[in-house]
Amino acid sequence: MAVEIAEQPAVWRRALAGRSAVASVAARIATQAPRFVLLAARGTSDHAALYGKYLVEILHGLPAGLVSPSTMTAYGARPAMRDVLLIAVSQSGGSPDLARTMEAGKAGGALTLAITNDPASPLARAAELHLDVAAGPERAVAATKSYTAQLLALYLLLDHLRGGAGEAAETLPERGEAVLARAATEIPAQAARYRFAQRLVVTGRGYAYPTAREAALKLMETSYVSGQAFSGADLLHGPLAMLDAQVPVLAVVPAGVAGAAMAQVLPRVRQARADMFVVGSAEAVAAADAGFALPEGVAEEVSPLLEILPFQLLALHLAVARGEDPDAPRGLRKVTETV
Amino acid sequence: MAVEIAEQPAVWRRALAGRSAVASVAARIATQAPRFVLLAARGTSDHAALYGKYLVEILHGLPAGLVSPSTMTAYGARPAMRDVLLIAVSQSGGSPDLARTMEAGKAGGALTLAITNDPASPLARAAELHLDVAAGPERAVAATKSYTAQLLALYLLLDHLRGGAGEAAETLPERGEAVLARAATEIPAQAARYRFAQRLVVTGRGYAYPTAREAALKLMETSYVSGQAFSGADLLHGPLAMLDAQVPVLAVVPAGVAGAAMAQVLPRVRQARADMFVVGSAEAVAAADAGFALPEGVAEEVSPLLEILPFQLLALHLAVARGEDPDAPRGLRKVTETV
Repeated sequence: MAVEIAEQPAVWRRALAGRSAVASVAARIATQAPRFVLLAARGTSDHAALYGKYLVEILHGLPAGLVSPSTMTAYGARPAMRDVLLIAVSQSGGSPDLARTMEAGKAGGALTLAITNDPASPLARAAELHLDVAAGPERAVAATKSYTAQLLALYLLLDHLRGGAGEAAETLPERGEAVLARAATEIPAQAARYRFAQRLVVTGRGYAYPTAREAALKLMETSYVSGQAFSGADLLHGPLAMLDAQVPVLAVVPAGVAGAAMAQVLPRVRQARADMFVVGSAEAVAAADAGFALPEGVAEEVSPLLEILPFQLLALHLAVARGEDPDAPRGLRKVTETV
Repeated sequence: MAVEIAEQPAVWRRALAGRSAVASVAARIATQAPRFVLLAARGTSDHAALYGKYLVEILHGLPAGLVSPSTMTAYGARPAMRDVLLIAVSQSGGSPDLARTMEAGKAGGALTLAITNDPASPLARAAELHLDVAAGPERAVAATKSYTAQLLALYLLLDHLRGGAGEAAETLPERGEAVLARAATEIPAQAARYRFAQRLVVTGRGYAYPTAREAALKLMETSYVSGQAFSGADLLHGPLAMLDAQVPVLAVVPAGVAGAAMAQVLPRVRQARADMFVVGSAEAVAAADAGFALPEGVAEEVSPLLEILPFQLLALHLAVARGEDPDAPRGLRKVTETV
């Protein structure tokens, strides 16, 4: 897991160098002018799909949704999918439910695109279009480099679709290296604070909400803590009641709209006497009990690639501090086959 | 909260008697023949919206999505919404973000429908069409009767839209009364089992997944337990690792497709040595450590109205057992205004 976390800036550099493949997929999609975008995924990839949904809604102004695969697999629904772009996201491309969702989408008239880390996978073969995130073999059960490679593939695709060339992502490799270098010194001590926490809450809004979801999953997978993620708004609609001084809150508060939207949330968390750890702007970190400051000047729509890095390391170091093996989470296999 | 839980069968009976209002809204929608359906909601109402999404995908074969309101409020997105039916679901109809989402949807060409418990609310006024769930004033912070009234309104609407008359719901009031009467004797003792649990997991698939989400929220709101809900498939993609003998699992396993789809999940939960409480078919309950059996012969698409009843009572009795006041959850107000 540590090796794969460290590889991420190099993976991004390769993806940026290979933008021509993205451009040709984007050109194919543009000829169909989809009016609605659906995304299908599970686990970590579902958080990348959620990020893609924000990109579609905000950058393209198209309605979007996340597919509930069971409707097409267990219930046999065959939705009318004309004018729909259906994107499935999966590291392995090996889960049968996603391949069947693609088949149902194709039969219903959707344009289908698979984003995987294996061009020879059943999912990649089931889709008309394929984007290879080319993260290299991922061996750790807790996905890290494939996640940010999926985020980058989605950003590059959706930026090319609106005529861009992914410029906002160009400085990410060097910024990622800087973040990882600093996190390597800061995060191990931070992890010690949560050594005995049994449950925690991660929260963020907008583009930062997928980061909160993915951070919670990494902590669950490696450290067996009950990690709950809520959009800042949803946290106020009920779950806030369970916060107290025993439930640490990890908040994603980057510069920009997503961070500003947390202004309504953080005072309520404070009132609940929760301990607060912030990954985000220097200002937001300074107001928290602990945290990790992100570099300035990064476009908000690509900030999630950097935001997740300190959380990946937090999950890794917390597992080690607890005497767990982050490379062998109990009960899990690398490829999860759900039907 | 206890009074409002008990009122539910009467609320459903009134809704069934008032189906002509639903029929006329359905007729208006049918003239526009929407091709995509988006739903927007927060908190408990978001779980009703998720149920509506399953109905749309399975019964109508239309692509559907849940809106991320921040894209239109915080980010100012103005999606192209022609051919879209945009449904907002809210008990109070008072949260500014949903009213603004409706305005943005209307401006983008969507047909807008508000489903609320207050026809004079800002949300009801912001939408072209309105369905009043007519649950009567709801005073408890933890929503119960408005939730099942929303489920029923969505079912009746979507069944009328496909030419039905909501027949599958007709026996629900008497079945609901029977469930509540039996639950009143069985659930208080069950609640005692979780007196000292700090965290728990609720899981279900398909139509039963919204029930899992809502059950977890009720337990968080009233009993301050960390209640995490996962679709059965998503549970296997990572969170399974954090299960052990200290994390009780509450599973929704009704007869039908949703229950059958859990066959792949429950043995893995068992392997993790988790204690299992099942709300569902008598067979599934018999195989668990504890549970509550649902009546037989209920159509799966309306089963969520009955499934949630024992969980509402579990949340109520667990709060009381812990010395908490379920009518005054700390940190919450009845109407949550998010922007």
